Amino acid sequence: VSSEPSSKAKDTTSESKQGYETLQVTTTDNITKIMLNRPDKKNAITTQMYREIIQAVEEAAKDDSVITVVTGNGDYYCSGNDLNNFTNIPSGGIEKMAKDGAVLLEDFVSHFIDFPKPLIAVVNGPAVGISVTLLGLFDIVYATDRATFHTPFSELGQSPEGCSSYMFPKIMGLPKANEMLLFNRKLTAREACTWGLVTEVFPDKTFEKEVWIRLKAYANLPKNSLALSKQLIRGVEKEMLHKVNCQECERLKERWLSDECMNAVLKFFEKKSKL
Amino acid sequence: VSSEPSSKAKDTTSESKQGYETLQVTTTDNITKIMLNRPDKKNAITTQMYREIIQAVEEAAKDDSVITVVTGNGDYYCSGNDLNNFTNIPSGGIEKMAKDGAVLLEDFVSHFIDFPKPLIAVVNGPAVGISVTLLGLFDIVYATDRATFHTPFSELGQSPEGCSSYMFPKIMGLPKANEMLLFNRKLTAREACTWGLVTEVFPDKTFEKEVWIRLKAYANLPKNSLALSKQLIRGVEKEMLHKVNCQECERLKERWLSDECMNAVLKFFEKKSKL
Amino acid sequence: VSSEPSSKAKDTTSESKQGYETLQVTTTDNITKIMLNRPDKKNAITTQMYREIIQAVEEAAKDDSVITVVTGNGDYYCSGNDLNNFTNIPSGGIEKMAKDGAVLLEDFVSHFIDFPKPLIAVVNGPAVGISVTLLGLFDIVYATDRATFHTPFSELGQSPEGCSSYMFPKIMGLPKANEMLLFNRKLTAREACTWGLVTEVFPDKTFEKEVWIRLKAYANLPKNSLALSKQLIRGVEKEMLHKVNCQECERLKERWLSDECMNAVLKFFEKKSKL
Repeated sequence: VSSEPSSKAKDTTSESKQGYETLQVTTTDNITKIMLNRPDKKNAITTQMYREIIQAVEEAAKDDSVITVVTGNGDYYCSGNDLNNFTNIPSGGIEKMAKDGAVLLEDFVSHFIDFPKPLIAVVNGPAVGISVTLLGLFDIVYATDRATFHTPFSELGQSPEGCSSYMFPKIMGLPKANEMLLFNRKLTAREACTWGLVTEVFPDKTFEKEVWIRLKAYANLPKNSLALSKQLIRGVEKEMLHKVNCQECERLKERWLSDECMNAVLKFFEKKSKL
Repeated sequence: VSSEPSSKAKDTTSESKQGYETLQVTTTDNITKIMLNRPDKKNAITTQMYREIIQAVEEAAKDDSVITVVTGNGDYYCSGNDLNNFTNIPSGGIEKMAKDGAVLLEDFVSHFIDFPKPLIAVVNGPAVGISVTLLGLFDIVYATDRATFHTPFSELGQSPEGCSSYMFPKIMGLPKANEMLLFNRKLTAREACTWGLVTEVFPDKTFEKEVWIRLKAYANLPKNSLALSKQLIRGVEKEMLHKVNCQECERLKERWLSDECMNAVLKFFEKKSKL
Repeated sequence: VSSEPSSKAKDTTSESKQGYETLQVTTTDNITKIMLNRPDKKNAITTQMYREIIQAVEEAAKDDSVITVVTGNGDYYCSGNDLNNFTNIPSGGIEKMAKDGAVLLEDFVSHFIDFPKPLIAVVNGPAVGISVTLLGLFDIVYATDRATFHTPFSELGQSPEGCSSYMFPKIMGLPKANEMLLFNRKLTAREACTWGLVTEVFPDKTFEKEVWIRLKAYANLPKNSLALSKQLIRGVEKEMLHKVNCQECERLKERWLSDECMNAVLKFFEKKSKL
């Protein structure tokens, strides 16, 4: 796992909070920004990174900021679950690995379900897997026109998470959601916007500038009004979302031990090693 | 409160039912039309007007009409809650005002949840606040291309009502709904149609003509079949809607007593007094 | 009821499973294809055909195929419920007919709610009534640009079925759904795609070719991963769907005995006999 600054990194703010190796977390102008910071690994999420995101989200929930933003450093928003997570087999064997992975994932997603303030994704490039499914739990999703949205679960012998099995059909209807969740269709930013997963798309050239002007204006709105409105909207389905999250993680735990999944992950590394 | 005919008023049908000061209610061709009738106040809804709408909706539910239409007189569909409602402080103080306001609002919205026949909004111009959120409880929404849709809750230190915290995410998905409900985005008629809040948009020039031809045809369809089909569609989430309505009103009652809301309303009147 | 091959029939695969008079059912390349096969009757669904579809769906659920496809033979996808079903009055009278019809319909729709694998509609032409409403229970809907989608329930004095009273508002929002379900609006394929009922539309000329290339690719994906993902997505609302199905059939049973429905069906046959 590398957390060294990469040559592709665009953002080098020096106000980073201490203690994060895989993230850069800053609070300015009432906005807490959580930036995934493994640009040389396309911000793939390692076990350590899941834990750090959980911590950063917990802190953002309690701090004085009005809104919280998640974005990625470099060319990618996030390439999803780091498949190297599957190669660190603990002493308890792969059953232990699957069990621990499911517990961690459920905890991770729970933090997004329960987040008490407006949560905004600034999708600065391609998004894959868990970083896409999780978008259904964000309040606003802004994307560069260079972004793509891809959830290749069945290709990898896996199944949907991040509450997407519930939220995606709610956002775009079953006939569209299943083309993504079952059949691995990769959406362009425009398609994702038309289908309702993305709030608005911006030209890549002016993306950061336009979006941050808007976010700064949002962060000046009455803080409690925003938080309480968000909690009102989320409240009505919070119980359902936790139930869905639990079921998705149960299913994934089984999937991770299946031949289909193991073969798919093996093939992935075989292909990679030949490059 | 003025209920005199305004110079902007376009509709002067003489079949008005008796007893309404803020509405014009007529029944013709199996259609009951409830027209908001304070055109010189952009059809802003006063406390009296909430009560009259409740009564008109109750009567329409029982009369012989096949469909019921809500529209506005003049240039506006409705500019939302009349902020003067906040300035008539009763002897019980602002706590009493907030409590009474929440009870009235919950009763008002309940009537739209329970309405037993097809309910159609003919949005003849800009719509603001409660007149927008309530559209999620209508069966059909036709709009002139001159209409806009604006719910500036957080700007006013308030929170969503009219079951919009539940229905808007259902209609357009969370990422779009929150841009309206949390961040005050004003939609054009075309945008509202693309996002699913509006059934169809018509050119302003031919709006009334085209829409009423269609409505008259609808009103000739089998009455019971329409009412029972509507009740079937509504029935599955009626309980949920009443729960949401109750929660929204509880939250608003708190909001109305908050500093954020009071300051925002004060600012509104300050700005107005300077004009 | 005719099950003879029609001159319009395009598909004459010889691997048909035995025992179906109104369907052609084949399994090739991990795909079970259930083709409605009364092309000279626009694939209108008779009582016998409901029963055969139930049987075919049950068999497909158990066989080795990865995905299941429903399509129509000839120019139409399906013209809906065969109104001749209303003319075979059993000895128990029309009450018995309505009761039996509701039991059969509920069982029929239940099989689509519970279907355990990806279920794909290949809509090869116009679709009417139950064949449209049922699409909300499919995982993917591909349509030729020649297809139309029409649910003329209120015109026939009836009410929505196939869980459309729940799924259509979920897919397209209430304001769009009601234009179809209450007011009989016929959608073009493009409209149905924009509204979310159809996953993708193809030019009629290349429809079959393009779609089957895609389906064959889907059928090579990991079988269990697909089935378990689909069950995960469906699972969260299976109970609700069965409840909705039951309510819809109850309501239809009443409707079928109503004057509005009887008059509408009589008018239909009168008109037909004059042609």
